[in-house]
Amino acid sequence: MSVYIPDPVIRRLPAYHRYFKELDAQKQIYVSSSDLAVKMGLTASQIRQDVSAFGGTGLQGCGYPVKEMRLHIEKLLGIHRPQRMIIMGAGNLGCALARYSVFSQERFSIAGAFDTSLDVIGHFVGNVEVQSVEHLEDFLKEHPVDIAVLTLPAEAAQPAAERLYAYGIRGFWNFAPVDLLLPKDAAVVNVHLDESLELLSYRMQNPSNW
Amino acid sequence: MSVYIPDPVIRRLPAYHRYFKELDAQKQIYVSSSDLAVKMGLTASQIRQDVSAFGGTGLQGCGYPVKEMRLHIEKLLGIHRPQRMIIMGAGNLGCALARYSVFSQERFSIAGAFDTSLDVIGHFVGNVEVQSVEHLEDFLKEHPVDIAVLTLPAEAAQPAAERLYAYGIRGFWNFAPVDLLLPKDAAVVNVHLDESLELLSYRMQNPSNW
Repeated sequence: MSVYIPDPVIRRLPAYHRYFKELDAQKQIYVSSSDLAVKMGLTASQIRQDVSAFGGTGLQGCGYPVKEMRLHIEKLLGIHRPQRMIIMGAGNLGCALARYSVFSQERFSIAGAFDTSLDVIGHFVGNVEVQSVEHLEDFLKEHPVDIAVLTLPAEAAQPAAERLYAYGIRGFWNFAPVDLLLPKDAAVVNVHLDESLELLSYRMQNPSNW
Repeated sequence: MSVYIPDPVIRRLPAYHRYFKELDAQKQIYVSSSDLAVKMGLTASQIRQDVSAFGGTGLQGCGYPVKEMRLHIEKLLGIHRPQRMIIMGAGNLGCALARYSVFSQERFSIAGAFDTSLDVIGHFVGNVEVQSVEHLEDFLKEHPVDIAVLTLPAEAAQPAAERLYAYGIRGFWNFAPVDLLLPKDAAVVNVHLDESLELLSYRMQNPSNW
């Protein structure tokens, strides 16, 4: 995709995807920007701007064609093709993510899980057996993997990410409470759970401030 | 706190907290905006603006006093006081969060866990026994709870949130893939894992676009 889409619009794209997917599941054919605005808690004008920015088109008097928009957004997001993930760190969170059904509804699958602890190596999480990280390089030579899910302690995340990058992984879904330093062609999305909870705490103290 | 802090600065506050906490743990007394900028991947001028917006102060020639800043941010975030959470939905993700050690390092604790499924009621997650949601109201009469963690299926989240709001809960950490509609004095922070993964997929396809 060569079209430039502003970052705030990109960040809203997955939410647009969710709403168009829901409408499509309900067999709705068209949706107006004002109906969508109510659902999404945005203004109709914001929605028209966003849709125009990500290259969607509506039909005067009908609104946006639901299925077409859904497919357009899926292509933009790259989720029209299957993607394989490995779990790095098979602790509580890693195992929960490995078993998380939401991903399999989309085209994400878990190809493997790795840990350093003998307590978990050999155990199954979901459909995969936890392997020793010593087998990581060999595994990646044989299995194409798109995304590494880092559910590792803070201090282990950066070295693991560097190693995975060296083995060719370019997608990092990082749950460790650190900011990864990787070359520009690596894509990193952080899920910093502790920070998210702190933000909630802030908003609870300042209910009118957002 | 009556000071108005712009939302983008608020969103960065937890990251500032993390860095000042790390520096404090390393017994560093002062940090300059330029050193902090390198660590955080921001510019020094951005950091000076942010710190000024959230009411921090530095010492000319020394930088920011680490411990003082840490405490100031903790107070702003409201994490200087203990906060009690309940887990709504003791599936994989709910259990993983109940056992997640990061929270207990801060002053968040798990007071209870609730589910509708007989398969999990009576089981322990971390230190708490999963109870039937039928006991929720009585539980909340006896135990002060600040935050509900919603690790429920999409369709169950909104009714559960309304019920919890009616029982007096005002903080909602929502992992269900829906946007909750609640009165203005409720604080909601969403962790939409599927959307986060879709954003990663986008960035992998468009490595130069962010």
